[in-house]
Amino acid sequence: MKLQVTQQNLAKALSTVARVANSRNTLPILSNVLLKTENNRLSIAATNLDIGITHFIGSKISKEGAITVPARLMQDFVSSLPDSVLNLELSDNKLHITNDQYQSTINGIVADDFPVMPSIKDGVTWKSPAGDFKKALSQVVFAASSDDSRPVLNGVYFHTSAGQAVVVATDSYRLAEDKLGKSAKPINFLMPATAAQDLLRIINDTDKEVVVTHDDQQVLFQVGDVNLVARLIEGNYPDYRKLIPSKFSTVAKMAKADFLNITKVSALFARESAGSVTIKADKDDKAVSINAIASQLGENTAKAGAKVSGGGEVTLNSRYLIEALNAFSANEIEFCFNGKLEPCVLRSASEPNYIHLIMPLRS
Amino acid sequence: MKLQVTQQNLAKALSTVARVANSRNTLPILSNVLLKTENNRLSIAATNLDIGITHFIGSKISKEGAITVPARLMQDFVSSLPDSVLNLELSDNKLHITNDQYQSTINGIVADDFPVMPSIKDGVTWKSPAGDFKKALSQVVFAASSDDSRPVLNGVYFHTSAGQAVVVATDSYRLAEDKLGKSAKPINFLMPATAAQDLLRIINDTDKEVVVTHDDQQVLFQVGDVNLVARLIEGNYPDYRKLIPSKFSTVAKMAKADFLNITKVSALFARESAGSVTIKADKDDKAVSINAIASQLGENTAKAGAKVSGGGEVTLNSRYLIEALNAFSANEIEFCFNGKLEPCVLRSASEPNYIHLIMPLRS
Repeated sequence: MKLQVTQQNLAKALSTVARVANSRNTLPILSNVLLKTENNRLSIAATNLDIGITHFIGSKISKEGAITVPARLMQDFVSSLPDSVLNLELSDNKLHITNDQYQSTINGIVADDFPVMPSIKDGVTWKSPAGDFKKALSQVVFAASSDDSRPVLNGVYFHTSAGQAVVVATDSYRLAEDKLGKSAKPINFLMPATAAQDLLRIINDTDKEVVVTHDDQQVLFQVGDVNLVARLIEGNYPDYRKLIPSKFSTVAKMAKADFLNITKVSALFARESAGSVTIKADKDDKAVSINAIASQLGENTAKAGAKVSGGGEVTLNSRYLIEALNAFSANEIEFCFNGKLEPCVLRSASEPNYIHLIMPLRS
Repeated sequence: MKLQVTQQNLAKALSTVARVANSRNTLPILSNVLLKTENNRLSIAATNLDIGITHFIGSKISKEGAITVPARLMQDFVSSLPDSVLNLELSDNKLHITNDQYQSTINGIVADDFPVMPSIKDGVTWKSPAGDFKKALSQVVFAASSDDSRPVLNGVYFHTSAGQAVVVATDSYRLAEDKLGKSAKPINFLMPATAAQDLLRIINDTDKEVVVTHDDQQVLFQVGDVNLVARLIEGNYPDYRKLIPSKFSTVAKMAKADFLNITKVSALFARESAGSVTIKADKDDKAVSINAIASQLGENTAKAGAKVSGGGEVTLNSRYLIEALNAFSANEIEFCFNGKLEPCVLRSASEPNYIHLIMPLRS
């Protein structure tokens, strides 16, 4: 292997893939990145066996070849170098990287030992505009569970419903659903939320579309010069749609910034009570107030103006409420509920595809 | 106690003092801040018994009084509030904080129980321009030891030498000394480096001078509206001056940015060898090169142009070299040494008061 690449392109590719390489893995080669010449490009790849990311960059190739080198050292090293053309040359499993000022040798492991994710055969392929896809996925992914007791809840579920591509995540205490637009293809897969987080990091503002291909085992996302393959989660996703209320006895319409601010302040007083805050919507007062009581520290009531229909109160986990509010880009949101026991819903007229549901706490 | 303060002033004062309050302390009141009316001002104070910080802010006082409240909650709460006038009122050791939108009650502990640092009697007082003082202290403080085996090395030593106020710190592997200007007063005290770090955080760009008063037990720094008192470290500071070489067989003059960059890159390859890098100054090559060998990972040589007199090589801890170079604000520095065993010195013609010494490693 002998080639030239720019420091900028190589540093960018390494920053995309290197985080997947894990030095704590039992298989030492998984802490390496694979560099490989492919059709006048250099591919830079890493995998942890659950997910694999490959970034292709332009390269002036004098001699084909492949090698794996320690991901962390390679990334730190290349990102520390000034913007310049780098010469990469392989001899005896040692990768020599040079420019005018720097001469480095990084010891590698032969590329043949690097595990390859199986390819997808007879998969379903569809496309989505990159911006819309990224926004929808980021609005739901944080609602997935990080507790391993129910593996299906660690996933983000993509499926078609009434001709629409839908993405949803829930940890059983809250649920977020968004729509990706019309789809004629039969979409149905459950990918790990951690892989979805990696995917979000890959999609840039300059990317135009995301091409998705899945079979029963794996899903492949193609975004610009980057491919991400993830192993799917097995199991049936819960029939969540029946949980979403269609009518509400109380609806409070208010500025998102106000609601977020009074929730954050009250949350400070809710540390002793596992984040529990009580939200009261008052039609006559034209306000929503949030109360938190910390028996040791004190108590807090914070109020913000709102247009209220109906009225009442409900007790929620303030962290869930803060995360839900942060997911909206709208300036104005609606907070809807039916008494103290049924799920609350956050929605916005300006983001009609997105719905966020939070289960109340018993107060 | 009943008074009005602006959210901005109170938030600023809390951010200055609250970090000293420690919730892990065995004395619960030390995790609180003391609020106390004093001559038409509100004083906000915290202490960990080794250091005490007091910040005074303007206040419209209707009724005198004092209370202590949990520092972390109070700071997080006030900093979350919008910029507004806050009403503070005390009743039954409960502090009520209100404005139009927020009504909070924070449970306090009576102020009488709050420990007071003893005052300084018959101390020596001197002044220093705030900007110069901050720069000099920040150039030396990081060289102090964080290992508790020799308490005097955990300190920053202020003293007078040949009519100059001098500040110095060393961990016995490196030493940094800076001058604070002429002083007729007999300055001689050793303060904890941790307190010096707190002091650095307090000095703002808008502050004009630092007034220093010390006796045998304590030192008081007055900066703008803030007072910081620290307990001194007992013991004799080592006679460090004899360690500083006066002549060098090799001097390399080069751009600080270049030296820093090649050191950082080489340091990546020096992780296996506890940061050890070998620096070579070559007169004919008009360059300084740094070499690091990682037996497992590979090796690296990086080079930068320099004006060299003499020549040779020396092995250093790359972390010490990086921290020393970062301490200089000069664009051009001199790296001076006498063979492989004697201390190296970093200095700059544009910062003649500052000298930084690093002991070599045996290579």
